[in-house]
This record gives sequence, structure tokens and C-alpha cells, in this order.
Amino acid sequence: MKSRGLWGKKFLDIQERVTEIGPPDEDHVIVKVHACGVCGTDINFVRDWEDEPMALGHEIAAEVIEVGKNVTSVKPGDRVIVEDCTMCGICENCKSGHPEFCRNMYDMEGQPGMGEYMSVRFNSLDKFEGLDYVSASLTEPLAVSLTAVLNAEIPLGGTVLVLGPGPLGLMCATLAKLRGASFVGITGLPADNPREKARLDLAKELGCDLTIEVGKQDVEDEIKTRFPNGVDRVIVSSPPRSIYDAFKVIRFGGIITYFGLHFGGKNVIDVDINDMIFRKITLRPTFAEPAINFPISNRLLKDGLVDASQLVTHTFGFGDAKEVMGAVIDGSQPIIKAVMLPNG
Amino acid sequence: MKSRGLWGKKFLDIQERVTEIGPPDEDHVIVKVHACGVCGTDINFVRDWEDEPMALGHEIAAEVIEVGKNVTSVKPGDRVIVEDCTMCGICENCKSGHPEFCRNMYDMEGQPGMGEYMSVRFNSLDKFEGLDYVSASLTEPLAVSLTAVLNAEIPLGGTVLVLGPGPLGLMCATLAKLRGASFVGITGLPADNPREKARLDLAKELGCDLTIEVGKQDVEDEIKTRFPNGVDRVIVSSPPRSIYDAFKVIRFGGIITYFGLHFGGKNVIDVDINDMIFRKITLRPTFAEPAINFPISNRLLKDGLVDASQLVTHTFGFGDAKEVMGAVIDGSQPIIKAVMLPNG
Amino acid sequence: MKSRGLWGKKFLDIQERVTEIGPPDEDHVIVKVHACGVCGTDINFVRDWEDEPMALGHEIAAEVIEVGKNVTSVKPGDRVIVEDCTMCGICENCKSGHPEFCRNMYDMEGQPGMGEYMSVRFNSLDKFEGLDYVSASLTEPLAVSLTAVLNAEIPLGGTVLVLGPGPLGLMCATLAKLRGASFVGITGLPADNPREKARLDLAKELGCDLTIEVGKQDVEDEIKTRFPNGVDRVIVSSPPRSIYDAFKVIRFGGIITYFGLHFGGKNVIDVDINDMIFRKITLRPTFAEPAINFPISNRLLKDGLVDASQLVTHTFGFGDAKEVMGAVIDGSQPIIKAVMLPNG
Amino acid sequence: MKSRGLWGKKFLDIQERVTEIGPPDEDHVIVKVHACGVCGTDINFVRDWEDEPMALGHEIAAEVIEVGKNVTSVKPGDRVIVEDCTMCGICENCKSGHPEFCRNMYDMEGQPGMGEYMSVRFNSLDKFEGLDYVSASLTEPLAVSLTAVLNAEIPLGGTVLVLGPGPLGLMCATLAKLRGASFVGITGLPADNPREKARLDLAKELGCDLTIEVGKQDVEDEIKTRFPNGVDRVIVSSPPRSIYDAFKVIRFGGIITYFGLHFGGKNVIDVDINDMIFRKITLRPTFAEPAINFPISNRLLKDGLVDASQLVTHTFGFGDAKEVMGAVIDGSQPIIKAVMLPNG
Repeated sequence: MKSRGLWGKKFLDIQERVTEIGPPDEDHVIVKVHACGVCGTDINFVRDWEDEPMALGHEIAAEVIEVGKNVTSVKPGDRVIVEDCTMCGICENCKSGHPEFCRNMYDMEGQPGMGEYMSVRFNSLDKFEGLDYVSASLTEPLAVSLTAVLNAEIPLGGTVLVLGPGPLGLMCATLAKLRGASFVGITGLPADNPREKARLDLAKELGCDLTIEVGKQDVEDEIKTRFPNGVDRVIVSSPPRSIYDAFKVIRFGGIITYFGLHFGGKNVIDVDINDMIFRKITLRPTFAEPAINFPISNRLLKDGLVDASQLVTHTFGFGDAKEVMGAVIDGSQPIIKAVMLPNG
Repeated sequence: MKSRGLWGKKFLDIQERVTEIGPPDEDHVIVKVHACGVCGTDINFVRDWEDEPMALGHEIAAEVIEVGKNVTSVKPGDRVIVEDCTMCGICENCKSGHPEFCRNMYDMEGQPGMGEYMSVRFNSLDKFEGLDYVSASLTEPLAVSLTAVLNAEIPLGGTVLVLGPGPLGLMCATLAKLRGASFVGITGLPADNPREKARLDLAKELGCDLTIEVGKQDVEDEIKTRFPNGVDRVIVSSPPRSIYDAFKVIRFGGIITYFGLHFGGKNVIDVDINDMIFRKITLRPTFAEPAINFPISNRLLKDGLVDASQLVTHTFGFGDAKEVMGAVIDGSQPIIKAVMLPNG
Repeated sequence: MKSRGLWGKKFLDIQERVTEIGPPDEDHVIVKVHACGVCGTDINFVRDWEDEPMALGHEIAAEVIEVGKNVTSVKPGDRVIVEDCTMCGICENCKSGHPEFCRNMYDMEGQPGMGEYMSVRFNSLDKFEGLDYVSASLTEPLAVSLTAVLNAEIPLGGTVLVLGPGPLGLMCATLAKLRGASFVGITGLPADNPREKARLDLAKELGCDLTIEVGKQDVEDEIKTRFPNGVDRVIVSSPPRSIYDAFKVIRFGGIITYFGLHFGGKNVIDVDINDMIFRKITLRPTFAEPAINFPISNRLLKDGLVDASQLVTHTFGFGDAKEVMGAVIDGSQPIIKAVMLPNG
Repeated sequence: MKSRGLWGKKFLDIQERVTEIGPPDEDHVIVKVHACGVCGTDINFVRDWEDEPMALGHEIAAEVIEVGKNVTSVKPGDRVIVEDCTMCGICENCKSGHPEFCRNMYDMEGQPGMGEYMSVRFNSLDKFEGLDYVSASLTEPLAVSLTAVLNAEIPLGGTVLVLGPGPLGLMCATLAKLRGASFVGITGLPADNPREKARLDLAKELGCDLTIEVGKQDVEDEIKTRFPNGVDRVIVSSPPRSIYDAFKVIRFGGIITYFGLHFGGKNVIDVDINDMIFRKITLRPTFAEPAINFPISNRLLKDGLVDASQLVTHTFGFGDAKEVMGAVIDGSQPIIKAVMLPNG
């Protein structure tokens, strides 16, 4: 079976390739991809990656087409999320109820989610019903945000600041509200282009109590005016250096959780250990592999507790992939989340 | 391959049967059983079970003989524990880090652990090294006790009473000490036969601070004399009705965890809900399926934190199975833990 | 200073008494009570209590009038909640961060909250601002519900059934939603009188996804139709015997928390220990003394996360106390929460 | 009442002063100090402090002499620990069961613990029995170590490395063993003087499985040889820069807890945020104020779970204070813990 898919590298060098897929191995499943979200990682590839082009897309909602002879957990026609990273299920960590420490994970075997078809191992599939494919494609990024929010252990009625208003940050804010925070603020770049404006506007729609335009407004001032002792939790979806702001606004005894990466030395920050000790501040990173929270994340979408339609602002196909990803980079369009429909 | 094994029913009707095993399916493994402990469940079968004879033995340490073509996790010669009950690894509960709620578990497919050979699914095996087979066969019962002790959330320096001095109760006491309890007491029947005497003697050797002979001594008196407010935790390895004693000696705000079963109506007890509310007592059952704590349990044995040689007092083969199990029932011998060696 | 207050016993024998209050001891504070809610306990007194009349009212919002010479934490004019039960702050439990296990608590020294003035120890007062007295009087019952909801450890997106639609049950439902439950159901008596109808109507307004009229509808049927495996959590605000329903609808591995009391033998229920073990069901009672969650509860009201105006349907004074409490008993009026205003 | 006590500043400028103490305020208690341990903080004062001399000593075991008129919790003759830092017991944090976040703590009002008598607030006293004063003076430092070990959430059978072999580090190692760690290693300076040699020797006596002489041996090599994946937990009692070693040896998903301070810029370290994210490493500081774990710590000493006699190597009085503290600094004597006896 032929499958057309996308690979990419820097300067928006996005390439269409056709690969041969299947028939499935005994424990593999052929799926037809109906929707695949664009992640910040994809954007990094098509903006900065200098090496061989990378397969694009890993936020995947698909339909089962054919199953290997040993597969009983799904059947043709089933709607499934394809996990980008799956626990092995047999190591000591998995058996002890700590799949988050599994080191033998299954991945997508180099295939792009932004492609017509994929062959995936049966255990990487999570069946779902009652949810359209585009909405379902949010399962992966929502699970990332969910992992951060659970790590943050938000107290009922607590106060939370989210740093960074990308789709992940916006979903963190939504989930923090859903978990019962009384105050959720979010920071972003100044709303000087359509992308940033759309994000801060959506933050308000999602119920954020405060948006801060970093550069125009001072994060510490804005928070301390409202909460002189700082906020209970800070969730950092932006790059490591924004953790400096987190330290400024976290309350005595608070928790900072973060998942924003940066490379080239910008991943290293100075930490004042005395200050962390005297103020009892915990630094707890979030890394959402393997796909621990996919089932819960999918259910939140299905039950309507998170509304995908507010987040997915654009869909696209092979023909306009370059244009849409370019716009995500240059901010010229009010894109929150763009989702590719590889099969139209 | 022929395999001789044991089945049993009431009145010590223990039957030897020969079954055909293997060759292994693609994801199965043939193992040679070197040691299989006698569990209270086995004893219940050969004492009370009225229906078709049941396969005996599920505390299994074995050697890999042959592997199916898809199996890469073990190879011939490896030492393994055979899990009696294995998480599926692909359901929502397993993926969420809650294999303890998995409902699609793999079992031993009707085979006795008290047999020469078994064919088991690859994911039911936990490899180990540096531990002899007899000691390793304690992995399963130790995991049961470990689950109870972890459920009990024993505070460092806390006080614990274990009800029931069988192998599981004795291991609970050992683990409670290992977890940093300052006081561990244990109750048992009066030491009027060799079995009961051996158990209470061993309890003292294992470091128990108090042994109580129920019937001769009053549990509440013995505890309240030492701790007028009661103990922090009670772990109940004995039948449900002994939970009445647990309520008498648990402190305000304490936790009672229990795993002792009984049938025929004796599984139902009266609970005073007002009393539980006013005294803030939590009832938290322990059920150690699937095999969540096998890897940790095996490591405790290997690292010598739990000394198997103190617990395994008897080994036996096909020839003396009936005699040994009979002695466990009638108490005529100082048996703590008996382990069958199906291959001599 | 003279203070008029209410005492009561069965058959609605509600008595007005005048007592002499103050001047305050060095560590006491004289407060003027502006609002005091009617609790189920008060109703029990005026319906069933056979002994000497009991002081009525302990859900108290008041104003500081005069402070003892050692008191620096409040000053005249401050708005305060009067705790009915206060941690000692110096025992091992309090010092270890476990005031919930404190056994040396301060109480209200026999004074009715349904009275004009009280003399209370300084440490029993929680200051608040930005909230009216009537709403603030919900702090105590909301804290009871909050303790139950926190004990229930509601998973984000989880399913919850609340048994009993009194003010406490209704607030449990509200808080469960606030904590991110995807489904909250509530049970009540058939809506055959104004009181029961008002409660079930309010449940729907508060966002409950299902109301079940016990007697007319079968609890298990209603839940299992929607959730064949049962719900994640059951919170029992109704009497102990309703825990039988909780066992029927709780999912494998679920938690049942409960705080409804009953007396005269109806506090004892049968519990099938085997079933609890096999289904991994935890029984965790809730008893909200001392006043651990008052500050958080008060903040939820102030921040508008819980809307007091939906719950407080009636206010009353000395003149109509008997009529209102009678109506709460006989169900003849659509009362959810009635609040006395002892100073008009 | 006259009380002789010690104050100090740099260059071992230790001064004896006589102050007037008491009679006690209504809520104060006069105690006679029988034993007061030397803390690293005291050593810092007499080595480096440049300003006005500081009161020395805060690890205090004493006897009640006289109580203020409102005090009922202790009486003359009682043995007590004097807390250096006591929760207020009335703020929102204390009432919510989080005294660790209390910001209104009581302190020792400028008095040296290394003095004959003190006047202390009644709520700063923890009564004890069945323990001599010298051993009891370890309550404070043991509580610091206990807080770190509890923060570390040591898994049963887990592996732990303690950085720094001072009294606090040694007690961390002891407590980690007591909590059920299977392996505990400890690092120190090379055993080239009597002080360092004594510490590493005691580490072995206390059951440490490995001692590492930093400078002579490489921490990472020593650990990775034994545990290629690193250890479960690192507890850092040494200065902030040793956290670099912690990052090298912590396993995927591990927790680093630390309480060693340093000043003058040496409190700031570089942290690679990407690395923390990819390896799921939590940084959780420990700061043991207020005195949350004193009661438990005291009980561990009383119950013999921690043996004070192994740690207290020297006692001294006013006459030899300078000599002993000088020896702690220069390492010329095999001092682990030195305890002053201000009343001989």
C-alpha cells in the first residue's frame, strides 16, 4: 500500500514522499490517518533542523484499516489514537505501576503522522468513540498539558500562573481551571501580531483571570499586585529562561513545573539554592513520555470538559502545509492549533 | 514434552497427572519449575474443595528451557519467577500507571506450579539473578505481604500489629520492621502444636516486639497496656472476623489493611459506621493481583533484606506432598513455609 | 453584657434564654453574631433530643466587639468565622502537621451560635473580608463537604455519586464538579414535598448530571445504565445504611467516603470483607473536626467558586425560629439552607 | 535569676555573658538547660561571623524550673526539648495542616541555648521521658535529617547516596537505612584528619554500604560501578555545589533533596533544565523550620531506633568551649557531635 507523507527541515523545506506500508506484521495494525496536529516540535524542525529531513507529525487520530493476525484489541473501522511513545508493559517499572519510568518504549518507527497511512504496533493504539477525528487529534498535546497540571498538584481554590500561551500553555490554563483553581493567569508575547493576539484572546475566552504581555508588562508586578505572597503554582510551557520569572512569583512552599525545552546553551539557568531552601520551592519537570495520560485526555475531550473546537483554528492538507506552517512561524495568521487532514 | 504435576481436592485427595506441554506458541516460554511454595490457597483446596480437583501451586521459581519465536525478553538458562497473574499492559488502567486496576489479566492457564514444566506467556516472567530457586519462590508471597505493608503506609517509628502468624503475616511483620516501625506485634493461635509454636518462635527471631496467643491472651489488653491509645496500623492476614480485634486496638486516625479471606458467610462482619467516623479509621483492603510488586519483592530477597532461609522450613517432592500438606493442616510439624521441588 | 440565645430539645421545644457574657478573659474575644446557619445536628436536637435542652447553632459568622488583653490577632470591627472546634496547636499531632488527629480541641464552651453574642478564644477565629455575613456562615458546612471531597481524591475527569441532597450533599456535588469531575450524580428522597423538590431542583442548577429519587428509581440501575463498571467515587452524606447502595455502584478500586451518622443501632451495617478485597474498595470516613478546612472554605465562598446565594433560601430571627425549623423537619417549605440572624 | 551563656563571632571570639532571666511571663516557662549540641551554624558563627556576636546553641534539652501563671502543659521537673522555631498554631497554614508553611513562627528571643537558663514560650516545649538530656539534645538535628529523609520519599529497598558526613549527613544515612533502603552510600572529605576519619568510620558502623572520599575517589565512578543507572535518591547535606555530583548519580526519575547552605555567591549553581526534563529529576529542598518533626525525632531516640551514643563523641562546659569548637573547625580531634553541658 502506498502512503504519501511529509518530512521537513529548516527554511520550510517540507518534502512529500511516498512510502510502501504493510501488509501488517502479526502484531501490527494499518491505520488511515484522518487528523494530525502540528506540534511545536514540527515547527522547530521546519524552522531550524539542519540535518536530514525529519518525519513530521505525531498528534494522530486515525481509523483501523487492517490488523495483523495476532491482534484482537482493535478491528477495522475502529477509531484510534496512535501513541507516539508507548510503555513496554513488561519491565520492572511498568509492572510496578510506574510506566513513566519505562526505558524500553515503542515509538512510531520513523513514520510521519502527517501521512495517509501508518503501520503501528497494536499496543500503541487507544480506541475511542463519540469524538470526531480533528478533536481527537488533540489527545496527545492535551495529555502533555495534563501531565504538567497533575504534576503541579493544584490545590482546590489555588492560584496558578502559566508561562507561555501556545496550545500547550492554553490547555494547561484550561485544565488548571477545570481542577478548581480560583485564579489562573497566563503570560505571552505582546499581542502585536495575529498569532499572539489570537492566543491571548483565547486565553480570556477560556476563563483566564489575567493575561500578561511580557515585554510590555512586568510579570512580577502584575502578580504581586494581586497576590503579594505570590501564586501557589507556576507551570512553565515556555523556554527554560522563563523559569527566572517563575521564581519571582512563586509563593513560599510553591511548586514550579516546566516542560519547555531550549537548546544551544539556553537550556542552562542559574539557580539560587539557598533561596530554594529558605522559600521551600520545588522544581519538578514534566516529560509526558510514554503516553500515560492519553486515555484520560481523550475522555476529557469526549466528555466536553475540554473543547477542542476552541483550540483548533485551522485545518490543512498536503497542498497548503508549507503555507500554514510558515504562518505559525511568522505569526501572520491567528493560528492557535493547526491540524493536517492527510486524507482530505 | 511430558510434565508431571499435582491437582488436589478435599480430604487430602492429591492427584498426580501427566500433561503434554509445548512446543511453545510464538509468545510463550517453556520453563522447568525448580521450586514452588505451598500457599494457604493450596491448603484450602486439599482441605475443603469439593468440586473437580484444582491445579496446585502458584509461587514459582523456574528456569527457561525454550522460547517461542517472538520472545526476546528471556532466553534458555535464565532464572525466572512465573507470575500467577499478569497485567495486560495495554488497557487504560495499565497505561495510566494503575495496573492494580487492570481487569484483563493473564493467568497460568490452568497449569499447576507444582509440576515439572509449564508453558507461560513471556510477559508473565520476571528474570532474576543471584538468588537460589527455593528462596526465589518466596517472591510471590512476599509480594502479597509487601502490598499490604505499602497499603498500610507505615509511619517511620510507628507502631504496628499484625493479625495472623502464617508466612504472609510473618513477612508483613518483617517488612514493617524494615520500613522503620518502632514496634511490631503479631497475634497467633496458642503455641500448643509444633506449627503454631514454630511460627511464634520465628516471629520473635524476626524481631517482633510482642507475640499474642489469642485465646490465652486478650489482644486489646496486651496492646492497650503498652499503647493506651492503640497502634498506628493493623495488618490483618487472618480471617475477616479478626477485624473486630483490629477495631479494638487501632488508634484514632489509624489504617486497617487486610487480605485474609473466608467463605460461607464468615466473610461478612458488622461495622459500626459512627465509630469509624468518630475515630477516623480507614478500612483499606489488600489484593495483590496482578503481580505489581514481584520485581521489588524479588530484589528484597536478593539483597538479603528479607531472609528466605528463616521462612522456608521444609522442602518436598512428589512422594511426600500429601504428608507435608497434611502436616500443614494438622499442625503436627513445625512448618512455616513448605516448598515443593518438582524436579528434585 | 446580656445575650439572648436559643436552646432546644425534642418536639420543637425551642427555648430563648438570656445569659451574661464577658468581659473577655485575656485570651478571649467578644463577638456579635450576625449569621448562624441551621445544621442537621440542630434539627436532630429539636426533633429527637430527650435530655436537657442543647445550645443551638455552630455555623457562625460574627463581628469582633471587644478583645482580651493578650489578643493581637483580631480587633473590634473585624469580620470573623467562629470555629466550633479548634486544634490545640501544641500537641504532637498539631506540631507534626496532623491537626486532624488533635485530641485536645477547643470548643464553644456551651454557647449557642444562635445567640446575640459569644465569648470565644482568640484562636477559634478566622478573619475574613469581602464577604457578607450570611454567605460567610456557610464556611463551616462547606468545610465539612470540602473535607469529604478532598478525602475522596476525585480524579480529574472522574465520575462521582453523592448520596443525600441536603446542604452538605449539594455542596459535595458542587465541589466535585469544581474539582474537575466529568459526571456528578446525586440521590434524594422522591420530590414529593417542597423541601425535597427544592433540593433536587437545585442539584440540577448546580450542574449535577443526574438526580435519582430513591424509592421511585433504583440507584444501581440508574448508575449502571450509564456506567456499567460503576463510578469512581461515592460520597455518602446520608445515613450509614445508604452505604449498601454505595457498594453497589462503586467501581473496582474505588473509594467510598461518608460522614452521615445515625444512632440507635442504625449505625451498624454488614460489610462483606471478601467483596471489599476482591473489588479493592476503600472505606474512608470523613469527620471534619477540628476546623482544618475553614480558611480554604471561606476563600472558595469569597472567590465565588461556591455561590452561597444558591444555597441559603431562608433567613430568620428569634420570632420565627420554631416555624422555620419545623418546616425543615416536615418538608413543607422549599428550604435548602436556613440561616438565623440573631441580631436582626 | 542570673544566667551565664555564650555568644560568639569569627576567629573563635567566644564570649561569656551573664543575663537576667525571668520571672516568667504568664505564658512563659523558665528552663534549666542540661545539654545543648553544637550545630554547624554555631561553627559558622565562631569561624566567619563578622558582626556583633551571636547567641550560640539551639539544640536544647532542658528541665522545667518555673512556669508562668497560664501555663498548664508543663510543670517544674518536666524534661523538655526547647524548640528553636515554633509554629504559630493559628494561621491559615497551621490550621490547614501545613505548619511547614507557617510564616509567624516563635523563636528563642535572642537567648543562647548554650546557657544555664532560658525563658521560653510554653508552646515551644516538647515534653519527653525515658531519655537522658545529652541524647535528647539530638532531637533538633535528628529532626532536620528526618525532614530530609521524609522529603526524599525513600522507596522500600531503594538506593540512596548521602552527600556529606557531618552529624546531619550521618543521621540521614541512619534514617535511610531505618526506612528500608537496601543501599546507603555516603561521601566525605578524605579521611586525612581525625575528624574526617571519625566520620567515615562511624558511617560504616552505622551500616553505610559505601563511603566515598571525595578528591581521592570519583563519586560518579563509585556509584555507576555498582548501579549503572544511578541511585534512587540523593540527599545533599553538603554545600550547593555538590548538587553537581547529585545530578551525575541520580537515576532517571529520581529525587534530589538538599539542605546544605553556602553564602557569598557559592549558593548559585547552573542547572540544565533540558536534562532535568529528559531525565525526570525533581529538585526538592529541605528546610526544617518550624519544628515539625521534633516529637517523632525524640521518639526515635527514646525507642532506640537512632542511637545517640554513637553520635555524641564529646561533651564540654564553659571552660573548654573554645577548645572544642576550635577542634571541630580544624579537624584535629575525632569529633562527630559535641554537646555542651551548661550546668555541668
